[in-house]
Formats: sequence, structure tokens, C-alpha cells
Amino acid sequence: MKIVIDKADLSNGVQTVSKAVPNNTTMSILECILIEASNGCIKMTANDMELGIETIVKGSIKQEGSVAVVSKKIQEVVRKLPDGEITINTDENYNVMISFGKSNIKINGRSGEDFVLLPQIEKKESIELSMFTLKEAVRQTIFSIGISDTNKIMSGIHMMIKDDQLKFTSLDGHRISIRKIQLKNSYEEKEVIIPGRTLNEISKIIDNDTEKNIMIYFSDSHLIFEFENTVIVSRLIDGKYFSVDRMLSSDYETKITVNNKEISDSIDRSMLFSKEGNKKPIVLDITEGLLSISVNSSEGGMNDEINIKSSGRDIRIGFNPKFLLDAMKVIDEESIDMYFVNPKAPCYIKDADESYIYMILPVNLS
Amino acid sequence: MKIVIDKADLSNGVQTVSKAVPNNTTMSILECILIEASNGCIKMTANDMELGIETIVKGSIKQEGSVAVVSKKIQEVVRKLPDGEITINTDENYNVMISFGKSNIKINGRSGEDFVLLPQIEKKESIELSMFTLKEAVRQTIFSIGISDTNKIMSGIHMMIKDDQLKFTSLDGHRISIRKIQLKNSYEEKEVIIPGRTLNEISKIIDNDTEKNIMIYFSDSHLIFEFENTVIVSRLIDGKYFSVDRMLSSDYETKITVNNKEISDSIDRSMLFSKEGNKKPIVLDITEGLLSISVNSSEGGMNDEINIKSSGRDIRIGFNPKFLLDAMKVIDEESIDMYFVNPKAPCYIKDADESYIYMILPVNLS
Repeated sequence: MKIVIDKADLSNGVQTVSKAVPNNTTMSILECILIEASNGCIKMTANDMELGIETIVKGSIKQEGSVAVVSKKIQEVVRKLPDGEITINTDENYNVMISFGKSNIKINGRSGEDFVLLPQIEKKESIELSMFTLKEAVRQTIFSIGISDTNKIMSGIHMMIKDDQLKFTSLDGHRISIRKIQLKNSYEEKEVIIPGRTLNEISKIIDNDTEKNIMIYFSDSHLIFEFENTVIVSRLIDGKYFSVDRMLSSDYETKITVNNKEISDSIDRSMLFSKEGNKKPIVLDITEGLLSISVNSSEGGMNDEINIKSSGRDIRIGFNPKFLLDAMKVIDEESIDMYFVNPKAPCYIKDADESYIYMILPVNLS
Repeated sequence: MKIVIDKADLSNGVQTVSKAVPNNTTMSILECILIEASNGCIKMTANDMELGIETIVKGSIKQEGSVAVVSKKIQEVVRKLPDGEITINTDENYNVMISFGKSNIKINGRSGEDFVLLPQIEKKESIELSMFTLKEAVRQTIFSIGISDTNKIMSGIHMMIKDDQLKFTSLDGHRISIRKIQLKNSYEEKEVIIPGRTLNEISKIIDNDTEKNIMIYFSDSHLIFEFENTVIVSRLIDGKYFSVDRMLSSDYETKITVNNKEISDSIDRSMLFSKEGNKKPIVLDITEGLLSISVNSSEGGMNDEINIKSSGRDIRIGFNPKFLLDAMKVIDEESIDMYFVNPKAPCYIKDADESYIYMILPVNLS
């Protein structure tokens, strides 16, 4: 194989597909990226059997062929390359020669034939949405997936399409995050559980662009994302997702409206004294028009007062501050509404039309 | 104690003195910063017995007093404070209340009387130089101090003043770095060995400013740096420094002039295959007008050719690439001169008037 490729294109291609290379694997071929030059196309592929990424890069083919190279090594090399044209040349022993000007770098490759290609999947229905929409929906829900190995379903995001509504749901043992988005078109009802890792990696690849679209194709066991020159194939998580609707309630005894930055800053400060280690809850004290946030630990403590709009009963309730802050961080609105029932019932942060719902369980104050 | 202080001033003060707080210590008071408000001055101090820093910060004193607070904790708190006026108030139990708006943060303090103040040192002669000059001289030599515990002298930088010349020297077992700088005034001859850590921390505090000056006062066992509102006291390293002049030679068999960026980029790339682990040397092959740099390892290798100006004999010589690159990185000139004798003798990188000299030992090519 011999190809000539611009450094920027080489770098983009390698960066994109390397997202599917697992950090730890015992199968050494999975650490590799496949570079193929054939039929006028330079294609890069990586595949860890759960997630596969394939991208076409610009460049000219001097001689067709293919080679697999260790992803980490080629990334290291690419970082050191100067801008401009790069020639990649392989010999019969799969030595990969990377040349520019009067410089030559050689790395070891291996036969492309060892590589596990992406599965050929029959595309069934599809939906179309903007990169921006997908990236936002992921950002606004992915923080509350469960990372336990014992419950695979929790490690995914539930995606549901019904008419023109896209709904993302995630949950761990302490909270539920829901984000609903209006699509341009209507679709038949479908639901899947997408591995969190897939959505994380896709989010890193796509831009925050409202003009660029992504096609998502459904099959029984996989999802295929297509955009620009890239195809991503992800296995789905088997099983039935939790009946989240039955866990939610819209009854409340206390409602407050509070400036998001004010409460977020305060909760952020409270974390000075409420760390993973000591598990000190922060205490929210709501009286008419006033929210007081406090925490006490052996290292000290804090006490803040924030003016709010409030209705209903006074309440004193404890939380893990991280869970509140995770939700507040991804809400773009300047002010947020919070709903409480009693100190043992979950709190809800949601907007009027429930385009987002964050349910968070309180912590017992002894 | 009760003081009112702008967040930026508080933050600067804490940042500055925290450089003298040791990372690991068994004496808990050394983890603290002392805040003193007396005689119309707010002063912060930290002192690890080797290095002490004292700085005056702006602010108004409502009630005189002092308190010691754990440096790490106050730094964490300060990072979370909003811009604007901050009130710091202590009670009789050394609780430190930090207030702004309707927010209060409390951290535990301790009596300022436990604190070990900076030693009172009789200032003898002094020299004056710009912050820029000191920062540059440190940057250009500190990378080659030895970090062995067995040879304390190697862990310092040798500073020598003679007439109007300031000379910094550092060395480890593999290289020597020398930087000479012209001062504005002439001084009596003196020499000291300054702990590398002292110069490292001072470099972080001072600006890259040619207009702002630093006074350095000498005493038998200490050095005092004074600038703006800050005083830094550092113990000196006892002992006699190496006779570096006797290790240097100006004879050579081969001289080359090479573009610094070209050779640095090439050596940087060679480090893809020459890591701490494998200790593979890189090979410099000098023939008339051409420098070839190559390295080979089990992972691959590289070969670069660079056009140079050369005179003298051809030579093939091996190096630890890091040692070459460390020196090249701190040389601001576009082109550098390198001098070689034979494959077992040190190489010199130096300019015509020897304002810098970097001596680097080669690695045996078997």
C-alpha cells in the first residue's frame, strides 16, 4: 500500500476511529487501526466488537493495499508530524514507512487480514437529527448512567422515539435524568438501550452543529450512526428498560424557583466540605422566599442564603451535592424550578413542559 | 482578627506564600499559612524551614490578630470565592469565618503562635537584577540539576557573581549547563549554591518583566530575595561546588551550525522510539553539510536528514535525546553551534561569546 495524505486529514481520521479502540484488551488486533486503500478510497477502521468506527479520509492512492497499525503508536507518531503532505508506504513485511521531506519514520504493522471488520447489518428504519441535538441530549443525560457491571441495562441510555418526540432516559440507583426533544419528522414508535460508551465516544467525534445531520439506522441488535464520511456501528444492550414512568410523580408540596448560577455556585462551594470520603449531605432549608444551604464537617462548614420564589410548605431536606450539581450544570436556563414532597421523597428539577426532568433521591438527615 | 480583602488580593497572597508549603511533612504547622493583621499591614507567611515566603497584601484591618490555616484548605476555598470583597473573621477558638454577601464559609484554624516565623537574618551585600533576567537564568539551567538525595550539592544551582557578570551553573552526572548574564552594576566576587526548589518556586512567583527588579541579599547561610511586597528567605546549600571549569574544554574536531527548530523537531520525533524504558540512544551522523539523525528500536525507528554548515572531521556519535532536547529548548537563537571531539568525549552546544554552554556526555554505541 502507498498513499499520500495531508497531515490534518490523517490526524482527523486516526482521532475519529481511535475512539473505538478499547483501553484494555487481551486481543492485540483490537488495539489496531486498519488502513485500507482500495477502489479509490482510503478508509480507516477500528472495532472493539461492541463499537466500530469507519471513516473515509481524503488522499491519493499510489498503490492499493491495507495494513493494521497499533492505534496508540500511530497517534503518537501523527502528533509529531509537521503540517503538509505525508506519504505512507508499506512493504511485504508490514513495515509502515511514514515519510515527509527528508524524514522517515518506521513503525511495525501487521496484515490487514487479521482485522475484524465491522458487521454487515441490514439497515431497517432510520431517523435523522442534527449533530447539535444528539450531542445535547447525550450531555444532558449521560452523567447519571450507572456504572455497575452487575446491571448492564443501567450502563446504557434508553432512547425512545414516538411520533416526532425523541426521549433519552438514564438512571443509576439515586437519580433519573430525562430529556425530550422535538424532531423535524414523525416516526414509528421504537425504543433501544444504547451503551453509554457509544454515546460518549460519538459525542467526542461530532460537532456542536445544528446544520449538520446524523442518520441513525435501527436493526435488531445494532444501531448505525452515519454522518459525513463516518459510519459508527454499536451493539445495543439487550433487555427491557426500567418502567421509569411509574417511578415519577408530579405531586408536590413545595415548589421553588431559583437562579441556576446562584444555587450552583453555592452547591459547588458546599462540596468543599462534602466529599466522596465523608459523605456529608448538604442541607436545603426552604422557608418563604428564602433557601438556605448548609453543610458541616470536621473540617469546617458553610452556610449560604439565596432569595427564591417559593410556594407551599417549608421543608428541610438533605442531598448528595454532586447529584444536584450534575443536573444543574446541564440545564441552560437561567432559572430552574425545583419540586419537593417531603424529606424522604425525591426532588424534581424540571421545566414547565417537561422537556427535561431530573429526579434526585434525598439523603436521610439523622 | 477581622480583615476585609479583595478576592484577587487574597488569592494572589495565598498563591504566593503557598509555594513554601511542603508537599509532605510530618509537622502539621508547616502545612499552614500564617495570616497576620497588625500595624496596619496584612501579612501572609509560609515557611518550611528551608524556604520561607512572606508577602504583604492590600486590605483593611477591622481588628488586629493572627491565625494559621491549612494552606491546601484555604487555597481550595479561595478558588471557589466570587470576585469582590471578602471578610475574614476569627473567633477565640480559631474558627476562621470567610464571608461575602449572604454566604459564610467556616474552616478550622489554629493559633498563630505555633507558627515558625522566618529567621531574622542580617543582610550583608546585595545585588539587583530584573525579574526577567532571574527567570531566564533559572529556566536555562534548572533542568540539569541532579535530583539525588546522596549528593545535596548537585540539587542546587551554583550562582557566581564576579564584577558585572552573573553565572548560573547546574550539573547532574551526564551534563553541565552554564548561563552567563551581564548585570548593570559591578559587585564584589561571591558564590553560593541555591537549592533548586527555591529557584523553581521563585520562578513561578515572579513575572517575565524586564522593568521590575529583584534585590538579592547575601548572608552566610541564607539568601533573601525581595521584590514588590514579597520577601523570600532560602537556606543555602553548604559545601564547595564542583570545579566545573576544569571539566570543560574548548578543543574540538568537528563543528556544526544547525537550525534549532529543525534539529529539535527531529530529536523530538526520535523520542517516539527512545524512551526512558528502552534507553535506546539516538545516533548523530555528521558528514560534510549533512546531519543524519536515526534511532532503531523493536517498535520501529526513524531516520532524518538535516542540512547543516559543518567543518572538521566526520563523526558518528550517540546521545540520550532528552539531554540534547532539554538544552535546545531553552536556547532562543534560531541556529545553534555544536562542537564534537570524538564519540566518547562530551559535545558542547554554545554561542560564540559563551553566554551559554551546554555540555552533554555521549552514549556508547555498541
